[in-house]
Amino acid sequence: MPEPAIVLGANQYGKAEVRLVRIDRDGPRHGITDFDVTSQLRGDFAAAHMEGDNSRIVATDTQKNTVFAFARDGVGTPEEFLLRLGRHFTGEFDWVTGGRWEAEQYTWNRIPVDGAGHDHSFVRGGTETRTAVVTFVGAEATVISGLRDLAVLKSAGSEFHGFVRDRYATLAETDDRILATSVTARWRYNRLDVGFDESYAEVRRLLLEAFARTHSLALQQTLYEMGRWVLEARTEIDEIRFSMSNLHHFAVDLTPFGLDNPNEVFYAADRPYGLIEATVLRDGVPGNHPAWQGIAGFC
Amino acid sequence: MPEPAIVLGANQYGKAEVRLVRIDRDGPRHGITDFDVTSQLRGDFAAAHMEGDNSRIVATDTQKNTVFAFARDGVGTPEEFLLRLGRHFTGEFDWVTGGRWEAEQYTWNRIPVDGAGHDHSFVRGGTETRTAVVTFVGAEATVISGLRDLAVLKSAGSEFHGFVRDRYATLAETDDRILATSVTARWRYNRLDVGFDESYAEVRRLLLEAFARTHSLALQQTLYEMGRWVLEARTEIDEIRFSMSNLHHFAVDLTPFGLDNPNEVFYAADRPYGLIEATVLRDGVPGNHPAWQGIAGFC
Amino acid sequence: MPEPAIVLGANQYGKAEVRLVRIDRDGPRHGITDFDVTSQLRGDFAAAHMEGDNSRIVATDTQKNTVFAFARDGVGTPEEFLLRLGRHFTGEFDWVTGGRWEAEQYTWNRIPVDGAGHDHSFVRGGTETRTAVVTFVGAEATVISGLRDLAVLKSAGSEFHGFVRDRYATLAETDDRILATSVTARWRYNRLDVGFDESYAEVRRLLLEAFARTHSLALQQTLYEMGRWVLEARTEIDEIRFSMSNLHHFAVDLTPFGLDNPNEVFYAADRPYGLIEATVLRDGVPGNHPAWQGIAGFC
Amino acid sequence: MPEPAIVLGANQYGKAEVRLVRIDRDGPRHGITDFDVTSQLRGDFAAAHMEGDNSRIVATDTQKNTVFAFARDGVGTPEEFLLRLGRHFTGEFDWVTGGRWEAEQYTWNRIPVDGAGHDHSFVRGGTETRTAVVTFVGAEATVISGLRDLAVLKSAGSEFHGFVRDRYATLAETDDRILATSVTARWRYNRLDVGFDESYAEVRRLLLEAFARTHSLALQQTLYEMGRWVLEARTEIDEIRFSMSNLHHFAVDLTPFGLDNPNEVFYAADRPYGLIEATVLRDGVPGNHPAWQGIAGFC
Repeated sequence: MPEPAIVLGANQYGKAEVRLVRIDRDGPRHGITDFDVTSQLRGDFAAAHMEGDNSRIVATDTQKNTVFAFARDGVGTPEEFLLRLGRHFTGEFDWVTGGRWEAEQYTWNRIPVDGAGHDHSFVRGGTETRTAVVTFVGAEATVISGLRDLAVLKSAGSEFHGFVRDRYATLAETDDRILATSVTARWRYNRLDVGFDESYAEVRRLLLEAFARTHSLALQQTLYEMGRWVLEARTEIDEIRFSMSNLHHFAVDLTPFGLDNPNEVFYAADRPYGLIEATVLRDGVPGNHPAWQGIAGFC
Repeated sequence: MPEPAIVLGANQYGKAEVRLVRIDRDGPRHGITDFDVTSQLRGDFAAAHMEGDNSRIVATDTQKNTVFAFARDGVGTPEEFLLRLGRHFTGEFDWVTGGRWEAEQYTWNRIPVDGAGHDHSFVRGGTETRTAVVTFVGAEATVISGLRDLAVLKSAGSEFHGFVRDRYATLAETDDRILATSVTARWRYNRLDVGFDESYAEVRRLLLEAFARTHSLALQQTLYEMGRWVLEARTEIDEIRFSMSNLHHFAVDLTPFGLDNPNEVFYAADRPYGLIEATVLRDGVPGNHPAWQGIAGFC
Repeated sequence: MPEPAIVLGANQYGKAEVRLVRIDRDGPRHGITDFDVTSQLRGDFAAAHMEGDNSRIVATDTQKNTVFAFARDGVGTPEEFLLRLGRHFTGEFDWVTGGRWEAEQYTWNRIPVDGAGHDHSFVRGGTETRTAVVTFVGAEATVISGLRDLAVLKSAGSEFHGFVRDRYATLAETDDRILATSVTARWRYNRLDVGFDESYAEVRRLLLEAFARTHSLALQQTLYEMGRWVLEARTEIDEIRFSMSNLHHFAVDLTPFGLDNPNEVFYAADRPYGLIEATVLRDGVPGNHPAWQGIAGFC
Repeated sequence: MPEPAIVLGANQYGKAEVRLVRIDRDGPRHGITDFDVTSQLRGDFAAAHMEGDNSRIVATDTQKNTVFAFARDGVGTPEEFLLRLGRHFTGEFDWVTGGRWEAEQYTWNRIPVDGAGHDHSFVRGGTETRTAVVTFVGAEATVISGLRDLAVLKSAGSEFHGFVRDRYATLAETDDRILATSVTARWRYNRLDVGFDESYAEVRRLLLEAFARTHSLALQQTLYEMGRWVLEARTEIDEIRFSMSNLHHFAVDLTPFGLDNPNEVFYAADRPYGLIEATVLRDGVPGNHPAWQGIAGFC
């Protein structure tokens, strides 16, 4: 029988969801950083796949250990921490030619006591999650930061009409609907010397403000405005991608009960939901940067 | 063959998780209330079970309709809305001798724009969820309010030692550990004329402050202090029950890497977790009020 | 200041969700048992709560260790394993006057190879989960077994009509609807010398067969028939409780597209859903056995 | 102010998670098909994004209606149903130049009664989910089928040693460990005239059998073998991609309790977990087919 012409293609491996909590306790006023870290290596791992030869395998357990050991020196922003990890793995092992390091960060606020935040007691805050992905191709790193599950709603200032009426169209046009969406966004930085915490806070603020201020004729339009606001204000960002669910709120028909409903009583549906996805970017920037590969849910 | 001596015992039925969003739009500054409502009737429904005779069945669809119709007049606090529902169903139908009405409430904050909250644009806030259960036995109502998934952590001020050392005990004693817990609490009111929003806000504040201020020798002790603070401050509450998971944070052993770890680098574990459940109540109050039946996860 | 009259009520504590996998490997044909075990102690733990005195605290870590150590001798059925745990803790420590031990069991089937099941390779099977709760009051044990998330559907043989028509009733009557439900059931044994695996398999079979054979006039009626079948066939069971969601499947109105829909095209809704809960039991059996306390979701 | 050079990049939109249940009821023996369908259109939608002009927007509600209307004629395999949807939308509207249609399928088995499957009563089966994605670029379609969450475990025949020992490596080598993984796989067909149900069943069988028969020296090796088996047997498939979590089962150290543990008692960990991802493909096939874009979790 001739050797079957079957080969190994792109591959990566590592440890996912290392739950790292770092307490900064230099003085009585502690700090807390709460990360979920994933480390994945890319390179020449053909022998492990095709012969079970692990001599080039940096065990996923070792990758986990490295995460914890590196945290001993402090962690800083998720982006900086992932950059340190990526430099280590690509620098230490010849055959590791790249990789992807990912983190989620969870927010903790100080518990208010006597009108001030407590020194070492915290309460989890926020419903959205901050995300970061750092990709290395050789020694070159790309940072994509983001947030997921930022739920926003506006109860006025949203219309939807003028859409295609084919034989399957039954939706009524409206000039007053609830617009609610859960925003997942990721933005790609064009450089690495960024104040990532400040940049994140500003992007979040801009997204919220653009959502609030835009009189919406379509969720697509709102999405585009949100992206435009970010790119106009933040020169360190070249591109932002959105995946926004349209969380339908249907005004309930109360006429069977002898009642009107002037857009006050709504049923919030789970499924199906609209799903609007798009990239907003600077003119001339290539739309298909390889750092996007393998990031879920973006077109 | 003799008739098998098999009978119907306690039963209830209704519509679960009616997702009701109410917009108050009397002026340009809108208000939003976001509930998940469950309605369950108790009474004489033996014919439906044993003969398929539905003549006494208020359809679960009808219960859902009633939730939406009642929201037309405004909803107020979850407790007040559930009381209205309970009075309606027990008053309208002879054979409905009671029931249970339950709600969760989700928080929306105004999006800040120009230093003020926007009129009609909101962002979801908070990780915990407010809960309410109203039980009717005949015309008599009991209100149990609560919250779930309030995650808190303290990075100092927590010890654990002096516990039993049997042959299966391997845990080291410690005078410095992270104490982290996700709090689910429910408290029973001793009357109905309560300002439920103000009472909820104060209970939440007291729980957080007691957690922060208590130097903990055991999660049991912290739990008890949290309950004591609430009962001492809020005379409208007779009893509070807690289900608190002990979310273990293990200091990582970094010595294989030539590093110490002065309680700064932690691994946050998922499972297993400690689970501490207890009731704190006023002396003389019966510990087994029937309104607690069927509420999940409390001893 | 007078001592505040605040006391500790019912309480329990322990380790939740110990993920235990036991491989039986006496010969080349392995066996696998996959449990999620929760251990909770009841007794006199007032000093821990009120003074931070842990001298009577069997640490939750110790309870976890005990689960693993006991598995060294083999585990058998979940019921038998929990009974061993309960006897140990109530027998070993004077002040432990009872407790609750709970397990879920996950199913693994042998992977078929050459027409037979493989010796040591398995695939997870089934969507439902087997459950067991063992409660000790002193030395007296009660076993409640069950299953959750058993999803069943019938596409014929289900009607719903004759229900109450008040001003909020809009639901149309039907003599042909999809009946779909996710069954959670728990049954209480009246003795301990039971072949629990055989009993579980038979109860599951009876529930499915009763669901299939019952021409349904209401989900309440189907529920009752399912309970009756179990109690008539299994004398070791005194009582069975059900929590059954009515998973609505709505026939889609295709008339706007010039199509009829003879009950062939359905939309499966998530929320809200009907929720039908009831106990079926032998006549004369007290309906309020204390072993049910603290079990979620049953009336 | 000069016009900001900000533009719209790649985008798609549609309705996600349309829960479609189709009953085939030509005779007394019913059939059931249970899908979760997502429809997303690609094309020229710049006006909607940049001007709020919806004249080219086929509303997501209309896409949902189309799914239900098309189901009136029967649905067949998920792949065939998605191909019909794709042909409709790309054929009907000039400016819709492509799109992606996705489905999950859930398994229902007949309830056994009197030794045979019941005519119209079903029970949900299986833990894994069948998936399909159909992409259109113009009139050209690509089909990628798959499955997710196929959990498998082998209790013997798995070793792991010979890996890199740097300063962060602490993992012990082993020649006997539990190998457990949850398999997500997707395979790309090289043609459309495929018997998709038969092909799916055979791929699933091959994946399971390769997992069982491969003596594993690394999960990477097992993955590669699984892919090789599929490609050698199924000429209609050019490429298969895997995302396989390594679900760690740690042998518990029982020596503190005076017990040995000859690989019989294990703790099943949740997080972190290994994550092994790779493509196996025929030699000469381009590794970066555009149909893979936007599919989550693959490298």
